[in-house]
Amino acid sequence: MKVALYPGSFDPITNGHLDVLGRALAVFDRVVVAVLANPRKSPLLAAATRVEVIRASLQGGELGSAAGADRVDVVTFDGLTVEAARANGASSIVRGLRAISDFETEMQLAHNNRRLAPEIDTVFFMTEAEYGYVSSTLVKEIASFGGDVTGMIPAPAAAALREVSGSR
Amino acid sequence: MKVALYPGSFDPITNGHLDVLGRALAVFDRVVVAVLANPRKSPLLAAATRVEVIRASLQGGELGSAAGADRVDVVTFDGLTVEAARANGASSIVRGLRAISDFETEMQLAHNNRRLAPEIDTVFFMTEAEYGYVSSTLVKEIASFGGDVTGMIPAPAAAALREVSGSR
Amino acid sequence: MKVALYPGSFDPITNGHLDVLGRALAVFDRVVVAVLANPRKSPLLAAATRVEVIRASLQGGELGSAAGADRVDVVTFDGLTVEAARANGASSIVRGLRAISDFETEMQLAHNNRRLAPEIDTVFFMTEAEYGYVSSTLVKEIASFGGDVTGMIPAPAAAALREVSGSR
Amino acid sequence: MKVALYPGSFDPITNGHLDVLGRALAVFDRVVVAVLANPRKSPLLAAATRVEVIRASLQGGELGSAAGADRVDVVTFDGLTVEAARANGASSIVRGLRAISDFETEMQLAHNNRRLAPEIDTVFFMTEAEYGYVSSTLVKEIASFGGDVTGMIPAPAAAALREVSGSR
Amino acid sequence: MKVALYPGSFDPITNGHLDVLGRALAVFDRVVVAVLANPRKSPLLAAATRVEVIRASLQGGELGSAAGADRVDVVTFDGLTVEAARANGASSIVRGLRAISDFETEMQLAHNNRRLAPEIDTVFFMTEAEYGYVSSTLVKEIASFGGDVTGMIPAPAAAALREVSGSR
Amino acid sequence: MKVALYPGSFDPITNGHLDVLGRALAVFDRVVVAVLANPRKSPLLAAATRVEVIRASLQGGELGSAAGADRVDVVTFDGLTVEAARANGASSIVRGLRAISDFETEMQLAHNNRRLAPEIDTVFFMTEAEYGYVSSTLVKEIASFGGDVTGMIPAPAAAALREVSGSR
Repeated sequence: MKVALYPGSFDPITNGHLDVLGRALAVFDRVVVAVLANPRKSPLLAAATRVEVIRASLQGGELGSAAGADRVDVVTFDGLTVEAARANGASSIVRGLRAISDFETEMQLAHNNRRLAPEIDTVFFMTEAEYGYVSSTLVKEIASFGGDVTGMIPAPAAAALREVSGSR
Repeated sequence: MKVALYPGSFDPITNGHLDVLGRALAVFDRVVVAVLANPRKSPLLAAATRVEVIRASLQGGELGSAAGADRVDVVTFDGLTVEAARANGASSIVRGLRAISDFETEMQLAHNNRRLAPEIDTVFFMTEAEYGYVSSTLVKEIASFGGDVTGMIPAPAAAALREVSGSR
Repeated sequence: MKVALYPGSFDPITNGHLDVLGRALAVFDRVVVAVLANPRKSPLLAAATRVEVIRASLQGGELGSAAGADRVDVVTFDGLTVEAARANGASSIVRGLRAISDFETEMQLAHNNRRLAPEIDTVFFMTEAEYGYVSSTLVKEIASFGGDVTGMIPAPAAAALREVSGSR
Repeated sequence: MKVALYPGSFDPITNGHLDVLGRALAVFDRVVVAVLANPRKSPLLAAATRVEVIRASLQGGELGSAAGADRVDVVTFDGLTVEAARANGASSIVRGLRAISDFETEMQLAHNNRRLAPEIDTVFFMTEAEYGYVSSTLVKEIASFGGDVTGMIPAPAAAALREVSGSR
Repeated sequence: MKVALYPGSFDPITNGHLDVLGRALAVFDRVVVAVLANPRKSPLLAAATRVEVIRASLQGGELGSAAGADRVDVVTFDGLTVEAARANGASSIVRGLRAISDFETEMQLAHNNRRLAPEIDTVFFMTEAEYGYVSSTLVKEIASFGGDVTGMIPAPAAAALREVSGSR
Repeated sequence: MKVALYPGSFDPITNGHLDVLGRALAVFDRVVVAVLANPRKSPLLAAATRVEVIRASLQGGELGSAAGADRVDVVTFDGLTVEAARANGASSIVRGLRAISDFETEMQLAHNNRRLAPEIDTVFFMTEAEYGYVSSTLVKEIASFGGDVTGMIPAPAAAALREVSGSR
């Protein structure tokens, strides 16, 4: 069984992330979505909330045509990505590519992960063009000004942003 | 009448910004320079100071050959850029392009602004080569060490930097 | 009246080109689509055919929501782009931006055109995301293998490609 | 069974290609190396020679630690890559990424292949750093001047280049 | 005598930095490694520690084949790089290039330094491919999670990171 | 004595090349400008003409402030660049960097040259901003249409282009 780890901050998960997840499920038997809990990165949403949002997004059928939500696990992790991969029995790390700036950072991470764990390799998928300009950071900025983020993030993510926004 | 919004932090305005403004005035009937007031971005100069500096730079004839300073408005805004465009009756957003890293960020912003306001489009101008390596961030760093910023920013901007520097 | 020149090979015109043309018509009063006739570039379609295809695409209402086909002229040119702009009374050159590789080439052309004709400036529009990966070269390659190019080029362009293909 | 198509010119296959192939074999059950026969691209080596060189390189154990040469097929194809994938029962296309310029071209190809065949997706692997600057084009140029290409291409590829060179 | 300044944060020095230093010593008679002391950049290691680590790395013969450690000075500086160059009698500034993102930043810095000090020019060396993905930032992150940084930084740098880590 | 090889097609030499040459002369004792004679690249000017144009440009004092024309040799070469460096006693190869696309190609060449000749390293200089958009290819295109290339290439190069143009 081929297991892949899909690590990220997912603060919150976007439709671009769900698109990459669907593509990974077409190649791997199981995908572990690994939410980076690192509090030093000052996420907007708590790690537990981010996990709940991802699970709700999967149940809601937002994954699209790739019927594979039952082959997804959602966990949190802190520390090295390759350790999270090993801990979850994953032999591959999945990452999405949108733009050039992604590419350079991802190349650096992939090469360093190989150095730390030669038995684990990174596999890249291209985000669908319509999500190519969506990022969690931009979504949070638009939402903070009351802008409409429909079509950029799944409904449970939008709900979580509204809740955080209301409590500030 | 074609009105364009030229949004930015302008902390402070540089000769590169003035160059782009002059190019926009050759295409549009009126250009509204919109200073992002967002205090979360920790600007060096207060929004009101940045507006004054821009106005002084325009009066001083620093705009160069494009005689159009009387067709420029300077305002502050916070929130979504497309809302500022709507509020100022602008159907276009003007942005300058200097380098690759600009380009990727600008593509992302332009596509997201279209999603939020399909009736408003972004129009890009290339900064003149001699200003291609000038940025507000670099200018502030050079000025903070007492370096000479002549030729990079207009005189009123240099004066404002000296004043802030003296008061620290 | 603001007139812009939109130069290119248009071998054939794509939906991405039409998207840029529509955006230019929202800013300029008149846009002259200028087909580069240069036979040294070994185009697939004759210059006259490319002009006909563009005109047919405009009449067919393929320009989309920007109702402005009557404000478009289609001409051929050879030689320097800035001379074509002058000859057609255009004070701006319009170009579309899709990707990084476009950007570098376009920066070089824009700066050189400024050197040759300081009174004419280049104005850039971002191609819509869904057309960001469409290019005339790729369309011709797909069509040459019998692949489906629907949605990538307007119907008259597809017809012209079929005709050329049939005659080979 | 997960089958992937690894298309390319392989004129000749390099150690970078073999590195990507080994990585693909860690994820897929079977990888079909598909040699583009297109004579319009004026390859240096005939398609049949390129196939032989790949097969010899696999037998010679040059694939490295990924013991999987028996799970590789080598075929030729002409026409659309997605048609070659369908014809070979592949649900994924494998491509290597080395540099930024690769990335933009690959994004364009991947998006167009999705448009032509939504059921087939492209999966990317990062070439090992030491092969990041190896390309078939450069290898051929070095070899044509009698330079040493050891470590850049497998021995059968070097032999094929010498033979072609001797016959000119 | 040709003297070059090699400025940087060196927080800590990596094997990539040592590789560039060795290359610079092949061209220049003397290289002054200039450690940016700027406390506003919140370095992990104190400036004095970074200087000690560099000196220890040079003595330990980690510089590789370029036998030139006796032609290296290590100093700290704050303020403008060109002033540090002048103060140390250097007519050139040395910088390493790894990736595209480096390149744009370095172009901006080099052009601004020329503007500030036309008599001093920047000279660039390519980091060896195996160090192309090593950065001080990444090394610190890996070390903070207890990951193995052997081969990425010299032994004295690893020791300094362990000491800082133990004291937190 | 430090000798550097500055290889290129120089078809024809531009003011950007002369700018790089002047910068190299500030670091090296002697610079050998090596004109690639390779007839397979279909140059516009014969190799001997390109050599003459470079020599005339140096004598004419077009090198600018760097008084060092007497420390320049001009030769032709064919084959591997590292062999030309060895044959001319050069321990460094000089290359200019203008833009991102340059950068990737140059990185590939530099790494491959190191592989072929570890004792020879490539040293990069940034072209002055005003020449950043000048290329031999573009200059030839502009000149072929009768455009003004003053300020882009030295006078002897312009004369050579006129002569070739007149004879066609």
